[in-house]
Amino acid sequence: MKKIHLLTPVHAYILAALMTCLLPAHAAINIQVEQWGVFELTLPGPTKGNPFTEVQLSANFTNGVKTLKANGFYDGKGLYKIRFMPDSIGNWAYITHSNRWELTGQQGNFVAVAPSPENHGPVSVAHTFHFSYADGTPFKPIGTTSYTWTHRPDKIEEQTLSTLASSPFNKIRMCVFPQTHGTKGLPPKRFPFAGKPTKPDYSRFNPDFFQHLEKRLSQLQELNIEADLILFHPYDDKHIWGLDNMAPEVEERYLRYIVARLSAYRNVWWSLANEYDFIRTKTEEDWDRLFKIVANSDPYQHLRSIHNGKKIYNHTKPWVTHVSMQNGLAVTSPGSAQLYRDVYNKPIVYDEVEYEGNYASRWAQLSGQELVHRFWAGSVVGTYVGHSEFFVEPGDSDKFVWLGQGGTLKGESPARLKFLRTILEEGPANGIEPTDKWWNPNIGGQRGEYYLIYFGHKTPKNWSFTLPAKGLENGMAFNLDIIDTWGMTITPVEGVFEIERKDRYSFTDTHNRSIPLPQKPAIALRITRVIGSH
Amino acid sequence: MKKIHLLTPVHAYILAALMTCLLPAHAAINIQVEQWGVFELTLPGPTKGNPFTEVQLSANFTNGVKTLKANGFYDGKGLYKIRFMPDSIGNWAYITHSNRWELTGQQGNFVAVAPSPENHGPVSVAHTFHFSYADGTPFKPIGTTSYTWTHRPDKIEEQTLSTLASSPFNKIRMCVFPQTHGTKGLPPKRFPFAGKPTKPDYSRFNPDFFQHLEKRLSQLQELNIEADLILFHPYDDKHIWGLDNMAPEVEERYLRYIVARLSAYRNVWWSLANEYDFIRTKTEEDWDRLFKIVANSDPYQHLRSIHNGKKIYNHTKPWVTHVSMQNGLAVTSPGSAQLYRDVYNKPIVYDEVEYEGNYASRWAQLSGQELVHRFWAGSVVGTYVGHSEFFVEPGDSDKFVWLGQGGTLKGESPARLKFLRTILEEGPANGIEPTDKWWNPNIGGQRGEYYLIYFGHKTPKNWSFTLPAKGLENGMAFNLDIIDTWGMTITPVEGVFEIERKDRYSFTDTHNRSIPLPQKPAIALRITRVIGSH
Repeated sequence: MKKIHLLTPVHAYILAALMTCLLPAHAAINIQVEQWGVFELTLPGPTKGNPFTEVQLSANFTNGVKTLKANGFYDGKGLYKIRFMPDSIGNWAYITHSNRWELTGQQGNFVAVAPSPENHGPVSVAHTFHFSYADGTPFKPIGTTSYTWTHRPDKIEEQTLSTLASSPFNKIRMCVFPQTHGTKGLPPKRFPFAGKPTKPDYSRFNPDFFQHLEKRLSQLQELNIEADLILFHPYDDKHIWGLDNMAPEVEERYLRYIVARLSAYRNVWWSLANEYDFIRTKTEEDWDRLFKIVANSDPYQHLRSIHNGKKIYNHTKPWVTHVSMQNGLAVTSPGSAQLYRDVYNKPIVYDEVEYEGNYASRWAQLSGQELVHRFWAGSVVGTYVGHSEFFVEPGDSDKFVWLGQGGTLKGESPARLKFLRTILEEGPANGIEPTDKWWNPNIGGQRGEYYLIYFGHKTPKNWSFTLPAKGLENGMAFNLDIIDTWGMTITPVEGVFEIERKDRYSFTDTHNRSIPLPQKPAIALRITRVIGSH
Repeated sequence: MKKIHLLTPVHAYILAALMTCLLPAHAAINIQVEQWGVFELTLPGPTKGNPFTEVQLSANFTNGVKTLKANGFYDGKGLYKIRFMPDSIGNWAYITHSNRWELTGQQGNFVAVAPSPENHGPVSVAHTFHFSYADGTPFKPIGTTSYTWTHRPDKIEEQTLSTLASSPFNKIRMCVFPQTHGTKGLPPKRFPFAGKPTKPDYSRFNPDFFQHLEKRLSQLQELNIEADLILFHPYDDKHIWGLDNMAPEVEERYLRYIVARLSAYRNVWWSLANEYDFIRTKTEEDWDRLFKIVANSDPYQHLRSIHNGKKIYNHTKPWVTHVSMQNGLAVTSPGSAQLYRDVYNKPIVYDEVEYEGNYASRWAQLSGQELVHRFWAGSVVGTYVGHSEFFVEPGDSDKFVWLGQGGTLKGESPARLKFLRTILEEGPANGIEPTDKWWNPNIGGQRGEYYLIYFGHKTPKNWSFTLPAKGLENGMAFNLDIIDTWGMTITPVEGVFEIERKDRYSFTDTHNRSIPLPQKPAIALRITRVIGSH
């Protein structure tokens, strides 16, 4: 689906109505949708009773090879919708199923055509620890967090989008529900349920709430930004809205509803909760149950995880696709950052590692340097790190910090994260792997081909060309760049380094050259095999 | 069971025979066994066919409150045995079950009496991350490894026991099966199966092999040393014995046999394998299956774990009681050592962290200082670390290194580990816990009561009395000792430190005293609450 289509999804409503009234089933209707775009079928249906709880609707979509079931949803005003994301090119036919005569048995078809250049499909796990888009393009997350940016005045939400457009970030963690923090004078405009915010009618959703969210998701998609959507969170101080403690059947209905609405958006990831363990009214078994509802109702199996406070969820469970980890300490060094990889054998995303900022709380006092350091410490061992910031102007409230509400970025890290993103995107398609995990944790890459060495807080005077032995052979030749991760410079070292075995564990430059380094912190080396050497 | 009983277990054979012939069932026979000692019933039985595979034997033991099933085993020479460890004081009655008339329906009873002072019962998990004996005495493991010390000439095995007797170690990791390494000229004397070592009869066990192992286990028990028994290992070079790749039914029979023989020994822990992932003929599902056999056939639920090579087993599985971890890198700092705690919520035992030694391989080149450092880095965050050493004399083979074969200890670390053990045993009964895990990982203890601060490789000139705020109140008072972990000195600092809140996160000495430190590496502080202060 291309830009304009995202904002105004294919209006199959009239066509579908036409189709079912005038045309034989499977007639060759010329509806075209991009691969990984959204096909949307709109059907008029019953308004009596409670359409949210009483009407069941789904459709099976088939291309003759496979069949996927997409659940429909009531969008208000007598209209029911079914959205579908075709994952391959060609003809797709559908038939609806419902417990209402006017919605069941509707048939039609459409053609999925080649995606536009910016559309690489949804992201999934690749090579155990990494990610790629469905078309095989590697996805190297450089994420940020702005919890409730979609609950701000329009002007600020648009400012957030504009900030993101020129930022390094290709993923954003964001909450579905509003938070109470930072809302004084600017209360959230929309709530997910009908009724009053403080006295919701849990049996009826508010379509406007979700339509607004969808608009913002589409805009993120236009910017090629993945939306890591947080489905529950504990930031309802004094529990005035009750969204953190709904009845199990309400939670489950909410999950089925949001998955039905959003799973056809290719840029959606499901994060079951933020700081899940701070929602003390739920047990780990509750989260298992909620995870399974999402997993079982999402036909595309979007990425799924859950973010911890102090207690880590058991990410070895099969419905967790990748690890979403709050732990700033782990990424203070490559050696500790790598440890969770071997526990989970899934991508490790350290998406909360403390924030760049000047707030009174110690979790929001990182310097830009330290945050960028943590990104590099994580990146060099093949894990991923997330950004946010929390800057309070003197005398200001914390109403408009990026972490909570979006707006503009004030920190020094984003420019350096853009620099890092470029380096990672120029790096191995299969991602960075530790090359000698227990002995040289600060060296990552792909053995024999590509190495990043990160010195962190150390400020070495010089470096003798030495690499861990595995994957190397005498006579291989490498180029070397010196990277100033903070200064954002890449300085190629002249000449080529031909290697020979030094001992059981390492190879060195045949000329034993010692390379002078800038004697600053946060220096890295990039070592790339000379094509065709050896 | 006291010393002499351990070596010559209660000979219930004649008594049992008498009982069944002459006495009515449940007659008051005055057989006494210590609580957590071994009651052993010996019964003559069939010798025809294959007693190992054809005869089933077990007994139910009851004290009127609970009933435990202990499996019996064939011990050769026409004798069958059932061993039982009573876990509470009082009368126990039993009845046997067998598919042979002469073994089934045998009844009797005995009295479990108070344990002798050195007998604290088996060890199990306590307070999530720690261990205690069954009588509540804390168990703080300071373990070592000597893989195949029970496969040496008698003289060397006795030397090993004598070395252990004066060592700091209260746990030893040891293999059931022999290893091929270091056996040139001194091949193992016993093999677990009948037949030739290189052509075993997998359908028949060799009782002599297990009797010898039991003798050594009993001797360890006399020394109050836990035997962390490794049931499989990959150290059968070229697979000449085949013990690393037996048929599933042979492995399962072996596990049931060894559990039947040994589970009544209170000092047994089950380690499913060493470097389990190096046994490349087995999948993780195989290990799950083997774990379940041990768990289901051990009436006492001795501790169970499995030790990794490069790939970590999923220790979140319910049959794993504690984590047995090879990872030397993790314990290079407290910050990284603590990370696995929150993953597993089980005791973390880093039982292979590289070895003190001078071997050609880099995993056996630690200085004594570095090994002791790793113990402290792990201990201060409430995890446990294991020792071994690998010293090769010039011109010597590696035949008699402690790691493989036992004998004597040559390293500098054991004396310091004894010092550490004393400090841990004088510490909180409930174990050391991180007190401010993400922000001050080098401080552990019990909040408000006891703190260990470990400076590691840093050599600070002085220290201002500061503690993380949680659990503290104004007016509390503490004593302070300066510990030289390598020099093995404890230097009390004069006076008492009364504290007051400094800020949101910390309390400091009201007098803001700065305490001079020795400016050496490996310095620790011990801070203990003055009884009744505040």
